[in-house]
Amino acid sequence: MQQQISVITLGITDLARSRRFYAEGFGWTPIFENEAIIFYQMNGFVLGTFSKPALEQDMGRTGLSVPGAFSLAHNVPAQDDVIAVMKQLVKAGGHVIREADAPPHGGFRGYVADPDDHAWEIAWNPAWAIDEQGMVTFGL
Amino acid sequence: MQQQISVITLGITDLARSRRFYAEGFGWTPIFENEAIIFYQMNGFVLGTFSKPALEQDMGRTGLSVPGAFSLAHNVPAQDDVIAVMKQLVKAGGHVIREADAPPHGGFRGYVADPDDHAWEIAWNPAWAIDEQGMVTFGL
Repeated sequence: MQQQISVITLGITDLARSRRFYAEGFGWTPIFENEAIIFYQMNGFVLGTFSKPALEQDMGRTGLSVPGAFSLAHNVPAQDDVIAVMKQLVKAGGHVIREADAPPHGGFRGYVADPDDHAWEIAWNPAWAIDEQGMVTFGL
Repeated sequence: MQQQISVITLGITDLARSRRFYAEGFGWTPIFENEAIIFYQMNGFVLGTFSKPALEQDMGRTGLSVPGAFSLAHNVPAQDDVIAVMKQLVKAGGHVIREADAPPHGGFRGYVADPDDHAWEIAWNPAWAIDEQGMVTFGL
């Protein structure tokens, strides 16, 4: 089977509030939006921000909780970018979970939650290549 | 800023149990593994399955809960693949959340939870292109 993920879908409560975080904080442009979902074309897959009740209905589950046991990471090209991006995300409605510092495995990173409390790690990791299209390759 | 996600990290409780789901269920090959984390090189980004206490420590948070308000989707090339993949995931330790059927927006999909109750949508969506490298493009 292809080693492939097609969509990451985040359950959210207020589309406009969430859109501000992603469009103004990260500066990302939606590729599609309606009253229940916003899609962003990412590096090889799609990010969806979907009304949480609609996600629960689609999944056939109720009571999905936040913060969930996962995180998403956005890597940046330089160490100084970590704090700059975190500040921009906070200005767009996020809040800091962990101030940036150097983890034991190297690099530099902090965590910001989006307005629905989904965790984003903002990281500088010089061992992992990112090409011009945003494709990320694991490295040691 | 690049419209880019570098890593999806899932908090898990038993690495061997989780590895079986991803390596035998999806047939994916880890690119790195130690006693706390397993990484898979995906289509333009990296999937990490990380001991939940270690993820909480890295994040500076406690009490991350499952199931969280998110889902991941793996799209397949043909409608018949949906049920075949779901069966294979269940054999590798997953459980069905929603049996496959046709959603209002078209295509065909079902949901399977991994052994840590993280939701995977297995979907056939003919409007979204997937190339030979597994890169997925939004379409209507």
